[in-house]
Amino acid sequence: MIQVDLNSDVGESFGNYKYGNDEENMGYLTSVNMACGLHAGDPIVIRETVEMAHQKRLAIGAHPGLPDLQGFGRRKMDLSPEEARDFVLYQIGALSAFLKIQGAKMTHVTLHGALSAMGKYDEALARAIVEGIKEYDPELIFTGVPGLVSYEVAKDLGLKVAACIPIDLNFRKNGASIIERKKKSRDPQEVARKALKLVTTEKLETVDGVDKALKVDILLIHGDAPNAVEILKTVKSELTNAGVKVEPFPNFV
Amino acid sequence: MIQVDLNSDVGESFGNYKYGNDEENMGYLTSVNMACGLHAGDPIVIRETVEMAHQKRLAIGAHPGLPDLQGFGRRKMDLSPEEARDFVLYQIGALSAFLKIQGAKMTHVTLHGALSAMGKYDEALARAIVEGIKEYDPELIFTGVPGLVSYEVAKDLGLKVAACIPIDLNFRKNGASIIERKKKSRDPQEVARKALKLVTTEKLETVDGVDKALKVDILLIHGDAPNAVEILKTVKSELTNAGVKVEPFPNFV
Amino acid sequence: MIQVDLNSDVGESFGNYKYGNDEENMGYLTSVNMACGLHAGDPIVIRETVEMAHQKRLAIGAHPGLPDLQGFGRRKMDLSPEEARDFVLYQIGALSAFLKIQGAKMTHVTLHGALSAMGKYDEALARAIVEGIKEYDPELIFTGVPGLVSYEVAKDLGLKVAACIPIDLNFRKNGASIIERKKKSRDPQEVARKALKLVTTEKLETVDGVDKALKVDILLIHGDAPNAVEILKTVKSELTNAGVKVEPFPNFV
Amino acid sequence: MIQVDLNSDVGESFGNYKYGNDEENMGYLTSVNMACGLHAGDPIVIRETVEMAHQKRLAIGAHPGLPDLQGFGRRKMDLSPEEARDFVLYQIGALSAFLKIQGAKMTHVTLHGALSAMGKYDEALARAIVEGIKEYDPELIFTGVPGLVSYEVAKDLGLKVAACIPIDLNFRKNGASIIERKKKSRDPQEVARKALKLVTTEKLETVDGVDKALKVDILLIHGDAPNAVEILKTVKSELTNAGVKVEPFPNFV
Repeated sequence: MIQVDLNSDVGESFGNYKYGNDEENMGYLTSVNMACGLHAGDPIVIRETVEMAHQKRLAIGAHPGLPDLQGFGRRKMDLSPEEARDFVLYQIGALSAFLKIQGAKMTHVTLHGALSAMGKYDEALARAIVEGIKEYDPELIFTGVPGLVSYEVAKDLGLKVAACIPIDLNFRKNGASIIERKKKSRDPQEVARKALKLVTTEKLETVDGVDKALKVDILLIHGDAPNAVEILKTVKSELTNAGVKVEPFPNFV
Repeated sequence: MIQVDLNSDVGESFGNYKYGNDEENMGYLTSVNMACGLHAGDPIVIRETVEMAHQKRLAIGAHPGLPDLQGFGRRKMDLSPEEARDFVLYQIGALSAFLKIQGAKMTHVTLHGALSAMGKYDEALARAIVEGIKEYDPELIFTGVPGLVSYEVAKDLGLKVAACIPIDLNFRKNGASIIERKKKSRDPQEVARKALKLVTTEKLETVDGVDKALKVDILLIHGDAPNAVEILKTVKSELTNAGVKVEPFPNFV
Repeated sequence: MIQVDLNSDVGESFGNYKYGNDEENMGYLTSVNMACGLHAGDPIVIRETVEMAHQKRLAIGAHPGLPDLQGFGRRKMDLSPEEARDFVLYQIGALSAFLKIQGAKMTHVTLHGALSAMGKYDEALARAIVEGIKEYDPELIFTGVPGLVSYEVAKDLGLKVAACIPIDLNFRKNGASIIERKKKSRDPQEVARKALKLVTTEKLETVDGVDKALKVDILLIHGDAPNAVEILKTVKSELTNAGVKVEPFPNFV
Repeated sequence: MIQVDLNSDVGESFGNYKYGNDEENMGYLTSVNMACGLHAGDPIVIRETVEMAHQKRLAIGAHPGLPDLQGFGRRKMDLSPEEARDFVLYQIGALSAFLKIQGAKMTHVTLHGALSAMGKYDEALARAIVEGIKEYDPELIFTGVPGLVSYEVAKDLGLKVAACIPIDLNFRKNGASIIERKKKSRDPQEVARKALKLVTTEKLETVDGVDKALKVDILLIHGDAPNAVEILKTVKSELTNAGVKVEPFPNFV
């Protein structure tokens, strides 16, 4: 039986600013990456979002980002490897309190935005972060795109890893995703088709006309797309109809 | 044998801004209240300060404050009880990560600044905070000034409490401390004399000419006073010379 | 001829967080209160919003708030009168740069949220703020609700004032508006009816069944209501149809 | 007659965090670069520091930095040229309010930290910033190190420029200064000797054993060095004794 996880970034509201549609999206998700208050989220948002996610028995991971709310953690910053690690630990810890009072468990860590991007080429930084995560809890699963430096470092250092693909984006044949600044609606059927193909054939479709071999554990859908709910719903039902078991990835990774 | 703890607030530097003299002060302390990044401190400062404190085997507690770095957590803010609790949990969690990677244990929680002051009169707020702490870890000791609402609520709700007196301040006969905005040097011998009297006779000297009966567990010395090290040194040696055992309060509370 | 101004708070987005619908709303407005980066807004948002507002030849005012982005400036904070004044001046100055490069002029100052609320009862604070505004530019018009301390202080100290009523809210007979935390849609016809009555008869309808005499210069419509555009459109057309001239208030105050 | 200006960065305290020794340093300075609240400084600090500087009739300039208090504006961030310009304008505007209420004039702009460093190699960013400054006020003098991109762009675009050298640092023969992370005391006589040589012979001494030809207008002394006051005092008296006129650079640039 083929298994896959449906995942989104959540908890990205801040104070008076609402972002995304976490509650509705969670009806279709099996895991979430929770913003931790530095690039997005705040203590009240985190508590509420953890409660929602735990009630639905989703796998809950930390989604640490750069300390840059105005840039939503998307602007690369000069940080030493040690500083990057400390920022990650701070956020993992902060999130852990809200999980603890719910009797929930942190299952994974997914680097956010520019922190993730920096971890793609800066091996020292990736290594410091991964070592920090491992010191904190060696059971935490590191999720990311296979082949990227941080993902490979996590595997090398003995962390369990889970391969995650943002399936609502387009890809180059080298595996790079094409990120648009403006979120736009995507055709749910088209996303579902690509998702099903990837999950069942281990082939990632690219805009370069060739497929890339890839075994995926987690399909990420961007929760802030205008029609995210519809996409999630369609992807989930297409996968389920095809006999794929959609469930939290810690069950099978 | 009489026992008492010597305690200071630490970890209050932020980025390029140095505050206090944690490393030297810790040579005389037995416990510390660690800023957690909202009113003071940052992930790098917290990690470094936790490392220092743990190497010296001090009892390490969280010192959560209001989310107001510019005001150093000293400006009262309108917060609902639930919001106040969430801010406290966030900070406890964030600190916990740095303790965990050191193999250290969080022993206590001490509310900072205006958050502490708000907890003195706002019972609903005090209750929400204490309940949050208890849900997080019922073994955490709540430290504060006996008689204040938050202290009594903590006791009522079954948390272990430890009585803490900022012995370098002056007091009114009702037990209120007289806070000065400008930190000034104090006479170390005078502070030591008052400390010894309080610890050995359970009498707190006040500026109103009468003593107030009080059993104390923790003597707080403000680490940002110009001559904090000298005060700490003098208080510790006077207490020790008088046969008082100065040790981490979780040993005897 | 009767004249009135249609006004909203604008520029309240922050980084990745979009708030309100400034561009569309401005099609109906004659003046705006511009967030200045402490409770909402950021330099990029301010520049863009100033450009939009100036192209439409709206009267542009500063909308200074408390330094509390997470609380959207709605949480009262302990500030000395001098601190409050300095925060206001900082924000007025910051906004002024973007007006200057557009060749636009700052016409007014409107206190935001809790800063406005604090100015309602704390006369020393209101006085310090108003004196700061006057020292900065004695031509600036102070807008607010007549009868409130800050409004009366501004008048007493010789600033020009403009009476502003949030006409999409309900009122008590003492003139207090009833603020709801959750923005909800309101009936555009009903708001328009109350607006027209207030403007043409100088009577403010209240939920207590009696009218309150009031001469208004500015009708504020909350730009973040779900149907703000529709309300603005309806209010403007009803006023215009009734022969009221809707124009920037600095033209007639 | 040879003229030169003595300059420091000031206004870098934040809330409870004191930084540098502005008041004493200003006794020897002829111009200052004022932090504007994003990388350092806050509205209260800015007002107080502007008052001090204006009483002493120093030339007051804006010292805009990156929006990163924790990194003190020293961590490079990915910013578009337009964003960088908007951040600079915001800060210039904010400072201008405090100058205006003092009847003081902003004389110059000096980019801070990583913003300055980014302007050294990113010409599009430098150009956007300089254009923003020029649109705001074409009379503002741009100060910096001659030869750097931002300095040359400012000159090309028609801004008046002033050559500024941090004379308490060491230099390479290519003109690059050697920045140490830890501020250390320097020998006042040695700094004064190098300063006098530079001012009177237009030769900058370098650690590579050769001098670099350079005409300087402004000698910057780091105000946060442990013995900054002593350095300033010595440099000023040595220059004055040698017949150099130490005065605000806008007088002679």
